[in-house]
Amino acid sequence: MNEGNLSFTEISQQMKKLIEPRTVAIVGASSKIEKVGGAITRNALEGGYRGKIYLVNPNAKRIFGRKVYPTLEEIPDEIDLVEIVVPAPIVPMIMEQAVRKKVKGAIIISSGFAEIGNTELQDQIVKIAKEGGIRVIGPNCFGLINTEIGLDLSFTFSKPLKGHLAFVSQSGAMCCGTLDWAFKEEIGFSKFINLGNKCDVDETDALAYLQEDPQTKVIAMYIEGVKNGRKLFEAIRHTSKKKPVVVLKGGVTESGARAALSHTASMAGRVEIVKAALKQAGALFVEDIEELFDSIQAFSQPLPKGRNVAIISNAGGLAVMTADWCHKLGLKVPKFPEKTVEELKSFLPPIASPFNPVDMTGDANYERYKRVIEVISGLKTIDVIISIFVSQGLVTSDGPARAVVEMQKVCNQPLLAYWMGGNSIINGVRILRRGGVPVYSSPERVAKAAAALIEYSDYRREIS
Amino acid sequence: MNEGNLSFTEISQQMKKLIEPRTVAIVGASSKIEKVGGAITRNALEGGYRGKIYLVNPNAKRIFGRKVYPTLEEIPDEIDLVEIVVPAPIVPMIMEQAVRKKVKGAIIISSGFAEIGNTELQDQIVKIAKEGGIRVIGPNCFGLINTEIGLDLSFTFSKPLKGHLAFVSQSGAMCCGTLDWAFKEEIGFSKFINLGNKCDVDETDALAYLQEDPQTKVIAMYIEGVKNGRKLFEAIRHTSKKKPVVVLKGGVTESGARAALSHTASMAGRVEIVKAALKQAGALFVEDIEELFDSIQAFSQPLPKGRNVAIISNAGGLAVMTADWCHKLGLKVPKFPEKTVEELKSFLPPIASPFNPVDMTGDANYERYKRVIEVISGLKTIDVIISIFVSQGLVTSDGPARAVVEMQKVCNQPLLAYWMGGNSIINGVRILRRGGVPVYSSPERVAKAAAALIEYSDYRREIS
Repeated sequence: MNEGNLSFTEISQQMKKLIEPRTVAIVGASSKIEKVGGAITRNALEGGYRGKIYLVNPNAKRIFGRKVYPTLEEIPDEIDLVEIVVPAPIVPMIMEQAVRKKVKGAIIISSGFAEIGNTELQDQIVKIAKEGGIRVIGPNCFGLINTEIGLDLSFTFSKPLKGHLAFVSQSGAMCCGTLDWAFKEEIGFSKFINLGNKCDVDETDALAYLQEDPQTKVIAMYIEGVKNGRKLFEAIRHTSKKKPVVVLKGGVTESGARAALSHTASMAGRVEIVKAALKQAGALFVEDIEELFDSIQAFSQPLPKGRNVAIISNAGGLAVMTADWCHKLGLKVPKFPEKTVEELKSFLPPIASPFNPVDMTGDANYERYKRVIEVISGLKTIDVIISIFVSQGLVTSDGPARAVVEMQKVCNQPLLAYWMGGNSIINGVRILRRGGVPVYSSPERVAKAAAALIEYSDYRREIS
Repeated sequence: MNEGNLSFTEISQQMKKLIEPRTVAIVGASSKIEKVGGAITRNALEGGYRGKIYLVNPNAKRIFGRKVYPTLEEIPDEIDLVEIVVPAPIVPMIMEQAVRKKVKGAIIISSGFAEIGNTELQDQIVKIAKEGGIRVIGPNCFGLINTEIGLDLSFTFSKPLKGHLAFVSQSGAMCCGTLDWAFKEEIGFSKFINLGNKCDVDETDALAYLQEDPQTKVIAMYIEGVKNGRKLFEAIRHTSKKKPVVVLKGGVTESGARAALSHTASMAGRVEIVKAALKQAGALFVEDIEELFDSIQAFSQPLPKGRNVAIISNAGGLAVMTADWCHKLGLKVPKFPEKTVEELKSFLPPIASPFNPVDMTGDANYERYKRVIEVISGLKTIDVIISIFVSQGLVTSDGPARAVVEMQKVCNQPLLAYWMGGNSIINGVRILRRGGVPVYSSPERVAKAAAALIEYSDYRREIS
């Protein structure tokens, strides 16, 4: 937690040493992969990290065939970052060694601090770190992942894929679950930062770094409590000028707040105030985990110029419901010009509906999806195109998916997809994902993703 | 569409002949499974139907090795139900044959009627049917499935599993997508009824049958337009006394209504009026496809006695957010009695939180889930228990899932689950599903499912 004397750029420089270290020492390294220390050691060594990793453990000679140092100070190299996985009472001693070793940053995985009421021990660490000029992530956290340099200092079992989404979370379990989900869905990340108890590094510091990180195109944050709302507000305002920040706030109701208190030792703010402040700062405020996942994926697409949505579908009912949701969210599903209707009519089957939303009928294939998107993408009055597919046994899901992916290259509008079904759409969904088109599983979800894109786009226009 | 002279029970008797026929004739049977007629013929023959199926096609001698009759009238047996898959202009002729054959019910798959403005042809069919005393499902529909007797008269490619959910939809594509999804998720159905243009049989008729059907425990309906709101209201009111009716209404906004008009030739009602009327009749009104799926699954559980929810989790953050959602939806997450807190404390690790919501910490396993549920299920002040799991690499997802499934037998409260993640929760999710515990993928979704259970339970108490 920066005390307010440093500029955003200066914090970013400090954070860079923490998140892009050239050398890392793991204190409490282990070969027991069923334990946190072992899982971290394995991940760190297997991640493909370009820098150097040193293992520290007074009770081991070799771990995974690697030399182990009895103490941090005996490592014959400069250390940028130390990751600490030892019992809580020993952490201050390790931190003192880190100060003597002139380490720049520390990640404290160990729990047993403020989250169980042991604020004294946590204060002790903060004091050592501040005096020694060390920035600290944690304690009580899951670790850090930087896919750009192959650095995985987490104890996750789901290897993160490379991508453009940054994920910042107070809760470590949220990080585990998100990585597990993302691996299955083939969603990649740039940086994964778990803040834990936030004794030093907080959301503001993370944003200072991420807003300048070229690998990161969109930032997802899960926040439970905020210690310095004004600083966070400023950081989000600054960052939102460059890239979208999507915020999920936990612990907002009475029960939630009580749980948050015992979870990461922070008091949850009043939701409406927080929400209004975050939105004013340009953040996208979401209310559920799936909505967070859905929103961040939308930003693989270009920003739309307005709120007019065209919906094309091989099923009238799904188009109806998606149009409903667009309306509920304040988006428009405008009529096409007469000329466009005529053009669509010229090649659509007679039972199709050439109006917006377009019902291309159940046998719509690659060709039909492609031609319809082609026609609509030429309209200046359309800002977003949503393509819908449900397998009706007549056409497989891959052709329409390929059509959407290919049309991305020629479309001016962002493209979003809603593929409905189970086994029969697996191929299509994969083609869309790998082709960079966000794909959703319900009318509500695809419409909310479109609304998120539009909301952020409006914000950018507003401030420019 | 019953004209109002028949009682609910009389309609139910008519519908029984349609939905539980002893003999079926498929007019337009085919061996080309890539065509609708062929897919239907294959499904009908492969479904394991206990009755007799006759194939009719003047241009074929044998289909899939079976005898084919040139006309309906040449079949040497009484026919309860005829399924018609021929071009629209020929349908009246087939219907006239059906009248002469004294058939009781007809399903018209063929499209090309009111949905493309051809109301005359549709009226012609209605006239023939009415005069001949035939109840008609369709036209422009996907067919009918009755898993109880192994009858699949749809052109779906996803074999439906047996279960207790009935699904009634105006849109055929919605049926296809739902079956495809359900097959992957291992969700079973009792009856699947696609109404299409609803020239005769509508939601009211379907409900008359389903409210008496012992196989059906919960009814899901997707409605686009309603021709006789008062009758539907009465049918839902009548049915809701016995079992829950969950309604998803499409075509509610301006754009949506326009699409619905061209889709199934019906004008969408004003949403707020419809919503209020449906809720007053005891229906659960949902706004998205996934919410429909989520709600109906919840009813595998017993009805709760009140709105007090206990939340147990191996991750504080997820418990926080689920508590938030419960509050937003008007549910309560009350404090446990001091005695319960002490009891939980006695075996939970020191860093756990023994309050409601309970944070059992990341290494909570089968034993811990079981003991915590055991303690909480003894509380008269708790009406619903939500169990949450996220894989943090310490415990696999199957143990906690088994604990929840096993506790079902001794619990008085309904149990719902939220398992977060991807590949690492596949086993746990499967165990929960097969064990009859509804499992969800986000705080919002599990809380909404709990709210649906509670809302219906409140309604039942209110009217009793």
